[in-house]
Amino acid sequence: MIVKAYAAKAPEKSLEPFEYELGDIGADQVDIDVSSCGICHSDLSMLDNHWDITEYPIVPGHEIAGTIRAVGKGVTHLTPGQNVGLGWFAESCMTCQQCLSGNHNLCPDAVGVIVGRHGGFADRVRAHKGWVIPLPAGVSTKTAGPLFCGGITVFNPIVQNNVRPTDRVAVVGIGGLGHMALRFLNAWGCEVTAFSTSPDKESAARDLGAHNFVNTADSGALEKLAGHFDMILVTVNVALDWDAYIGALSPKGKLHIVGAAPSVEATVFPMILGQRSFGGSPLGSPATMASMLDFAARHVIEPVTEAFPMSKVNDALEKLRSGKPGHRIVLENDF
Amino acid sequence: MIVKAYAAKAPEKSLEPFEYELGDIGADQVDIDVSSCGICHSDLSMLDNHWDITEYPIVPGHEIAGTIRAVGKGVTHLTPGQNVGLGWFAESCMTCQQCLSGNHNLCPDAVGVIVGRHGGFADRVRAHKGWVIPLPAGVSTKTAGPLFCGGITVFNPIVQNNVRPTDRVAVVGIGGLGHMALRFLNAWGCEVTAFSTSPDKESAARDLGAHNFVNTADSGALEKLAGHFDMILVTVNVALDWDAYIGALSPKGKLHIVGAAPSVEATVFPMILGQRSFGGSPLGSPATMASMLDFAARHVIEPVTEAFPMSKVNDALEKLRSGKPGHRIVLENDF
Repeated sequence: MIVKAYAAKAPEKSLEPFEYELGDIGADQVDIDVSSCGICHSDLSMLDNHWDITEYPIVPGHEIAGTIRAVGKGVTHLTPGQNVGLGWFAESCMTCQQCLSGNHNLCPDAVGVIVGRHGGFADRVRAHKGWVIPLPAGVSTKTAGPLFCGGITVFNPIVQNNVRPTDRVAVVGIGGLGHMALRFLNAWGCEVTAFSTSPDKESAARDLGAHNFVNTADSGALEKLAGHFDMILVTVNVALDWDAYIGALSPKGKLHIVGAAPSVEATVFPMILGQRSFGGSPLGSPATMASMLDFAARHVIEPVTEAFPMSKVNDALEKLRSGKPGHRIVLENDF
Repeated sequence: MIVKAYAAKAPEKSLEPFEYELGDIGADQVDIDVSSCGICHSDLSMLDNHWDITEYPIVPGHEIAGTIRAVGKGVTHLTPGQNVGLGWFAESCMTCQQCLSGNHNLCPDAVGVIVGRHGGFADRVRAHKGWVIPLPAGVSTKTAGPLFCGGITVFNPIVQNNVRPTDRVAVVGIGGLGHMALRFLNAWGCEVTAFSTSPDKESAARDLGAHNFVNTADSGALEKLAGHFDMILVTVNVALDWDAYIGALSPKGKLHIVGAAPSVEATVFPMILGQRSFGGSPLGSPATMASMLDFAARHVIEPVTEAFPMSKVNDALEKLRSGKPGHRIVLENDF
């Protein structure tokens, strides 16, 4: 079967139409007709080979929503015609300690959809049955794609850190990830604070569910919030004044990083005194993705998206490269 | 009532006999006849005013075991003659969100036994009833003192991080704190590894409960253990190669610091990919101390102690200042 796609043949090149042969479907595999595919900063990093793992030509795209076209003979829980999504990972070993513990996202042999294989800027994509997640009623194939990477990246810390509806949570950065975090946390019942250096985003942040907005460029803004937050979720990938952020944590509070700032440096004593900690996490497991989708459906949470036809993929990439949209750009399959 | 004690009148001075008037006992207070009192590095820090909070003259000592002499009229759960212990904190507000949540050790108004008041290098000490913890049968007033500061400092992270008996845990540093951590973790059922730069401590570490011993001065020692540990408990107060230690954590693993190294600097990406984190904690709550004592009694765990008569306090302090004992020095009341 021939897949029609858009691929880059070298770093920083425009994408061009590209076709490849998918081969026979494996017993445990699922083929998806792509409806739409979000664009993530990780697509840009892979296009430009920032992580030294890109194989060219590369077909980016790992925020995929679509409809099952075919399933392998070992797939019994999914059926053609079903609406599904697929995120960063296409498969994992299913048998290591992490996979067997439900932490498939931490499998050392997990394979990225666009790492050594082709992704969702295409009419079709293939993945292992364990990573193809059904969309509940009410979750649209037009907008669900970004939930499978940006969405799960911010939803997973809420689950992993046992955030409670009585908690006070801040989100640093109101962009492609942060805007979804505000929606999730508001529905989770938390006191939600948006941290941004762009005061013009206040109105949007409040519309997305923030009860408070803090311009962290204001001198002393963080100091006024000393000891306040049970979790601060960092979605930006820049160096921060880490001690000031840790100081804004309540006792037992956690600074959780999902934006890959290069490094973090912090004074130890305030962490000891307040039993504060910080860490990070990648995406989420298939089970957590299913929980997220149920939660999103129940609370009518979807990403804010701006649609481009897939044939305009280069325009869409240029828009993401040049700005910091407070939303997610999605390509609609027009092959 | 006159208390007989040993006090320093200025930084880096020897301790001298000192008496003070305790005054009437408050309704919620308990007076303890000191049997023995451990010496902690924090006593040295306070003696030398390293933290700028010392008031002179200072009577150090906050690892206290003894017998109740008197209780205030509001104390109904403790009785004179009962064996008890007292650690770093003498009181907390009992009504803030932390105290009411059982996290009295995180109370912002908690008062240290030797901060602005006098401690356990004395024949008697006074504290709030909430912080005076009964010793179960089998826990001796001769050796229990160090459990109340060094002991709870390493026991609390096991509880707070939900360490399970199936976990693999490393302890960095086999000294006054680390040796107790090895005993607790062995009894907890974990795979226990001792990390030290002193290969001559291997035999003692194994006797204390370590299943494995790693000389972290060996080149590549940590790299061989990549991904291994669910928790690494740092009891030393020096800068480490943080990235190497974080690399030795399993997915979801935690680097937990109780030795107050000045600062920590770490690369973020490995923390995100493996959902690793790091943090610290101070001592423990009264409820956790009671749990620790029950656990210690059931498993016959006590600190390794070397006893000095309290009248030889200056010799004992000198021994702690000049070495890195793999045990705890305890003063026995000989007033």
